Parts: sequence; structure tokens; C-alpha cells
Amino acid sequence: MSVVQDVLLTIKKYNMIESGNRVLVAVSGGPDSMALLHILFGLKDQLGIQLHVFHLNHCFRGTESMQDACLVEDTAQLLGVPYTLEKFDVPAYCVQNHKSNQEGAREVRYNLISRISSQIGAARVALGHHADDQAETVIANFLRGSGLTGLKGFLPLREEFYIRPLFRLRRKDIEEYCKVNKISYRIDSSNKKTVYKRNQIRLELIPVLEDYNPALVNTLLKTAEVLRAEDEFLENEAGKVCTSPMVSNECNGWVLDIDLLTALPLALQRRVMRKLWSRMVGEPGGLGFGHLEVILDLLQEGKGSWESHLPRGIHVTRSYNQLYFKKESESNERAPVDRYHINVPGETQIPGLGVVVRANVLFRGETLDPEMLPAQEVLLDYDKLNGKLFVRTRLHGDRFSPLGMNGAEVKLKKFFIDQKIPWEKRESIPLVTCNGEIAWVAGVRPAEKFKVDEASERLLHLSLLKQ
Amino acid sequence: MSVVQDVLLTIKKYNMIESGNRVLVAVSGGPDSMALLHILFGLKDQLGIQLHVFHLNHCFRGTESMQDACLVEDTAQLLGVPYTLEKFDVPAYCVQNHKSNQEGAREVRYNLISRISSQIGAARVALGHHADDQAETVIANFLRGSGLTGLKGFLPLREEFYIRPLFRLRRKDIEEYCKVNKISYRIDSSNKKTVYKRNQIRLELIPVLEDYNPALVNTLLKTAEVLRAEDEFLENEAGKVCTSPMVSNECNGWVLDIDLLTALPLALQRRVMRKLWSRMVGEPGGLGFGHLEVILDLLQEGKGSWESHLPRGIHVTRSYNQLYFKKESESNERAPVDRYHINVPGETQIPGLGVVVRANVLFRGETLDPEMLPAQEVLLDYDKLNGKLFVRTRLHGDRFSPLGMNGAEVKLKKFFIDQKIPWEKRESIPLVTCNGEIAWVAGVRPAEKFKVDEASERLLHLSLLKQ
Repeated sequence: MSVVQDVLLTIKKYNMIESGNRVLVAVSGGPDSMALLHILFGLKDQLGIQLHVFHLNHCFRGTESMQDACLVEDTAQLLGVPYTLEKFDVPAYCVQNHKSNQEGAREVRYNLISRISSQIGAARVALGHHADDQAETVIANFLRGSGLTGLKGFLPLREEFYIRPLFRLRRKDIEEYCKVNKISYRIDSSNKKTVYKRNQIRLELIPVLEDYNPALVNTLLKTAEVLRAEDEFLENEAGKVCTSPMVSNECNGWVLDIDLLTALPLALQRRVMRKLWSRMVGEPGGLGFGHLEVILDLLQEGKGSWESHLPRGIHVTRSYNQLYFKKESESNERAPVDRYHINVPGETQIPGLGVVVRANVLFRGETLDPEMLPAQEVLLDYDKLNGKLFVRTRLHGDRFSPLGMNGAEVKLKKFFIDQKIPWEKRESIPLVTCNGEIAWVAGVRPAEKFKVDEASERLLHLSLLKQ
Repeated sequence: MSVVQDVLLTIKKYNMIESGNRVLVAVSGGPDSMALLHILFGLKDQLGIQLHVFHLNHCFRGTESMQDACLVEDTAQLLGVPYTLEKFDVPAYCVQNHKSNQEGAREVRYNLISRISSQIGAARVALGHHADDQAETVIANFLRGSGLTGLKGFLPLREEFYIRPLFRLRRKDIEEYCKVNKISYRIDSSNKKTVYKRNQIRLELIPVLEDYNPALVNTLLKTAEVLRAEDEFLENEAGKVCTSPMVSNECNGWVLDIDLLTALPLALQRRVMRKLWSRMVGEPGGLGFGHLEVILDLLQEGKGSWESHLPRGIHVTRSYNQLYFKKESESNERAPVDRYHINVPGETQIPGLGVVVRANVLFRGETLDPEMLPAQEVLLDYDKLNGKLFVRTRLHGDRFSPLGMNGAEVKLKKFFIDQKIPWEKRESIPLVTCNGEIAWVAGVRPAEKFKVDEASERLLHLSLLKQ
């Protein structure tokens, strides 16, 4: 099959382009992208598409980089294809943003592609990656242990936007195509250096591996194709779980029902947790095997509360049958202690907790039986509260004498455990204090000491409202 | 963690052994299996198990092999563990059965293990494979492109029978354990030869790959662990499809509803087809990517009938909306032509088709209206049938004048197509003939020429029964 026929079949097989599309072709000046441009140019009428060339001068190689840009400009002019040349000081960007050269170049490139595509109304961006690039990607990911998501390599069509029409072609066939069709190209001199692991894989490792399987590149292309479908299926199944009642979005994080989670096949347990982590850090990948295993082992061990830390500041805590995924900063965020003086009567906003405490003073007979109030309201004996009232969250060593326990004092921590208050919520329960003593664990229980009794005359009515 | 602790944890994590189990320990005499024996011996009371040593002399290395056997025997006697030593001429077996040495040794070993386990009542067989072996397996499978099923490596617990308690240990830790505990072992001299690809991977390739990732072995162990769960999930999902109404077992093969198949995620389509193939050839694995892609591409292309050949003599045919998996020999099997003379009255068995034709002669008024009969029965005008009746299957060039078409003759092939008779079934539809003319396409349509009309007096009643 000719190179052009293969590209046409690839485009059709993966539904890469629709008739009427404007396609931005990313051209570096190397053989792959120059061949890509020529092949698409030859097919543009048949496909019913319009082309636009994009070249980025990364400023890595001075004069060489400028010559690359000139070649691309000349070619676009010769073909009569509109073009955009951009120049960006990537080395400076990398220094400023503490990125590796490859990482920085990638970021800048994709940002520019995105901006220019939207300026010119491009529906697709064509990239010159081919079968050998795919094999290198798969090998690199295999060696670093990235699982299915990495072993599937890059996609022929990503996000319905980036297309890789040379996806199934070998490097040598592309170079041969350039030779036969007298297509000029420039070789990026840094491709021949093995300082980058990626070049080393191409130049040194693949020849070694081909001794074990001479058809290695094609083998890996097939492997990637099979694994791509399997990864997609697994991701979809995990996605279904994430939109099921088992997973809920609470307190700027995610909460999972542990009984439901552990009843899932292990593969889905791992994927669901990875998915939640990805959502929270805003990008896919990067969560290692070890982190998940710690959580899975802890889940198997039993019912106790515990916490575990994932990368990028995600904090996982178990509390009873729930698993909380929270951002570290948020889970450590505490309302300032003894800071909020409660206005009596009046409303006091507690910004750190997102609640308002409303206070009124009533006389006996003006209100309901204290025991008939909802948990979010309480009646206390105002005359027993001989000091200013404050709201704070718990402190280490807090003690409390819950109503109904004849004044017996317990550790607040133990009280929370007995009441099955989830670990995560304990940090955000407002405590109303008077002279340092806890008068009301808001929404849970008042203290015995300040309870309304037969002698009470003035009653303090507190309500906890959501802001 | 000590080596013994790790083994204990591994045994517990994968539920490898139950208290009361008799465990056959396969001991070659090398460091791995000798360490395995000693570790299990040390744990046997704690685990509540009994050990039995098994050693196979493969006869590959003459005196060396005998010395291995002696070491194992001495060790078992010293520990007071019962043992079985077997000697088998594997080289001769390999020559006779056209197997590679490794393949032959594996077959003989697993057969003997299976026999001896059942003789001594062993519930488990412990094997000495460790983390480095796993990494080698994963790399070998990666290089030959075996997909998830190979990338997951071997299992810590296979078929609830084979256990690998050293699964998470590194080779160097096992050798260190032998040294510290003064455990004698023998090194198989063939392990140092790189004639086998497997040795070459261990001795030459892994050191190269460790330059890219110094923690390669552990990385691959984790990859395998994750992929194992994902493969298991995918296999289970595919298994569910295979027991759904979409798949049925017919004519010694499998039939799939194509509309339902193609509505499945691609990953499941591939796995379901692989599963059916495996069931038919009686073993897993061995079906390449290319074969499935041909079928998937054909399925996408349209509605026409086609056939495709899979390895090991499996034949796939599409006919309308059904996909048939059949054994090549069976799909070519045809009932003998014009062989079966129909006894009138009486029953005639047609062995090649698995049916019986029952014939009766009735007089008008003794039976129902011909049009009221089920498809498996027919009434013909017996007096129009002036010759012996036979049953055969179709022949190239058969023609037929279907009832209701005023005597117009059509090719039988076209008639089958018009009637949407699946390709595969056409071969097994009995044709009742008289003087070479088709009188009844059994179960489908009688011929116009032999139909019952006002003048008919004697009626032939034919019924097609399953044998």
C-alpha cells in the first residue's frame, strides 16, 4: 500500500477529518511533518478540507531554528497554503517556570496551537507522529511502569481535535516518501543526541530490542491498539461508577461509600480512586501504584479511621463507611480559634465554616420545649452563661459534659467517636464556648451544665444556619 | 521486612494456603526452590500445613541432573519431609513430540505434578518463581506483543492450585537468605547460557533496561499487579457476554448475533471472539491481533456474507446478522448426497444431519389443510411423485420451483438468499428429491410441481424431526 493510501485509510478508519474542516498542520520542518503537509495537500480536494500551516520557532537552536522556519515558510508559499509562524523563547520560559525543555516546549506549543486554531477556525490539528514514535512512547511508558494508560500510547484522534494521520506509517517509509517526492526537510540536530532518554530509546534501545523481535515496532503498534480499546472500556466503566450514588461531591471534595467501593472488582476500585484524584488535581496520570495500594490495604484491614496522603496535596481519610478525598489545604483549614464573638441578640457569620449563628434571648413560655427543637437549634439557660460567648472549632484536649450524662465529662474526641461523627466533619463542627467551657457542640448536643431546668428564666436560643 | 515475613504476608494476601492443606513443593535444587522449601518448612506449623517434596530429573544434563536429585533427596531426608523423585527422559519426549526443550519440559513437569498431587492428596503446589522471574516474563511478553494477558505475567495463585509464595521477593534477597541460612543449592549450568531467549533477557537485556529505570523489576511487578486485576475484570465482562443470549452454541460451534456484538465496546468484541476461539481449540492464548482485525474490519464493512480463517482450523463465517465460529473440518462436513432413500411409510434417519424424516401416506380428508401445517411438516401430492424419494443436501447448480411462484424456477442459492437462510445453515438443510427434482426444501418450502390441489387423492405427509 502506498504511503498516501495508508494515510487515507487511517483518516477514514479513525474518522479524523470531516469534509469542510479547516485543518491546522503543525510543521516543524522535519521529514515527518513535511511529508504530512505534502500528503494532506495532495488529499485536500478529495477530503474536502482546507489547510493552514503552523510553525513554532522554539528558539532552542539559534540560526538552525531560523532556517527551519524559513523552510516551512517557503514550502507553504510554494504550495499556496496560508501559514502562521510563531517565535517563542522557550528556553527562557522553561527557566522561569522550572520546566524541563521538553515539558516547556510541549506546553508552549499546545497553548499556541490552541490559540491559533481558534483564531483561524481550525476544526482539527494534524500532527506528524508515526508508528516509530508510538513504539518509543510505549517502550518509555513500559519502562516507567505507567500501566494501561501509558501502554496504549498516544491516540490517533485525541479529544476530537488532534489527529495523527501518519499514525500507522514507519519512519523509513516516510523518509522514502520524501526522497521519491523530492520533499526537502531539515533534521533537528538535537534528535541525534542521546542526552534525552527519548532519543536514547530510539537510537540505542530499540535496535537492541529488535534483536528479540525484528517486527517490534509493528508488534507494539498492535499492542497499543488493543490496549487502547481496553483502557477506554475500563475508563468508561469507572466513569459510570463515578456518576453513581456511590460517589458524591461534598465539601469541595469527593466522598465514597466504602461498602460499595470494596464490592467492586479491584480494577474498578483502583480506577475510580485514580479518577477522583485526577479530577481534584485537574490533570490525568501521575498517581502511582504504591499510593493506591496503601489505601486498598487499609480498606481491607478493618473499620478504624485513618488518613493517607496522595501526591499533589490530596488527603484521603476513612471515617466509618466513608472515604473522603480532600485537598490538603482545605482539610487543614480551620476556623480561627476563639475568634468569633457571638452577638447576642444578633447573627454572627463564621466565614471559615460557612455558617451563621443566630442568637436570641427569650423568656420562659416564649418558646417550645428544648427537647422539641431540631438538632440545629438549642435552648440554653442564659443566666448560667456568665461570660461572653464565642465560636471556635475543636482543640486538642477539649473536654465536654454532654446533656443527659449527669454532668460526667468526656473527651470531646471520644464523644465524637461515640456519636459516629465522621473524622472529616469533626474539624468543621462549631463549638459555642463560654469562659472556655463548651456550651454547645452545635448541631449535636448542648452541655449538661447550661441546660434549661425548672429554675431557668432567660433562655438563649441559638440557631446554626448555613451561610 | 525479612524474607520469611514477606512470604507469610504474600501467602495471606493471596489466600494461598488453608490450614490443613498438604502442599507439594516443587524443588529443582536451585536457590529459589531450596529457599522456598526451607521457608515453608519453617512456617509449616504456623500455617498448619504438611509438606511433600517433588523433584523431577529432566535428564537434560546427565551427571549434573543426578546430583541435583541427590541434593533434593538429602535435604528432604534431613528435614524429615516425605518426597517423590521422578526421572523422565524429556529430551527424547521433545524429539518424539516435536517440542522445544522448554515446552516439552514444562508439559512433562506439569503432568507429573498433577498426577503426584492427586496421589498424595496435595491441595496446593508451591513453585519457586520470584519477582525477577515475573519481570522477565512481563518483558518477554511485552516484546512479543501478547497484550494484557501476557503483560499481567504469571499469577501468585493460579487455578486455586499453583502457588508462588516467593512472588514478591527479589532473586538477590533469596540468594542472601540461602547464604545466611547456609542452605545448599545447585546452579543449573544452562541458566548461564544465553541460547534461550529467556536467559538472554535475564542476563543481557534487563541490565540494559535498568539503565532507564533502576527500579525496573519492582516497577514491572507493580505493572503486572495492576494489569492482572484489569485483565480479570475484562475477562469476567467478556465471560458475561458469552453466557448471554447473544452467543449460542449450535452445530458444534458458536453463533453470535452481529448487531449485539458490534454494539459492544471494541475491547469486549475482541475478547468475546478470543474466548470463543479458545473454547474451540481447547486452550487460551495464541490468537493474534491480525486475525481479529480482519474480522472486525469485515464486520464494519457491511452486510455481505464472507468467511475468514483463524489459526488451529477455526472457520468464521458471516451470514446475515450472524457470525459462526466452526471447526474447519466440521464446516466442510456434508451429508452424503442422494444417499438416503426415504422409507414410505416409515422413518428415515439422516445421520449426517442429525434429523429423521417421517413419511406417511394419507387420503384426502384424513389431514389438515396443507397451509395449516408447521414449517417442519409438509403435504405433497403422492401421485405426482412418480419415483423413489431421497434426502440430500444442496449441490452446486440446484434449481427449485417454490410453491406460490406459478412454477417459476429459481436457483436454490438465490432462493436461500431471498429467504434469508444463513450461509451456514444452507449446508445442512435436507432436500427431499424425486427423480432428481427438489420436492421439498425441508422446513422451508415445498415445490410448486408437487403441491396438493383439488385433484389430489393420496397425500404424502412428511415430517422433519430432530434425532
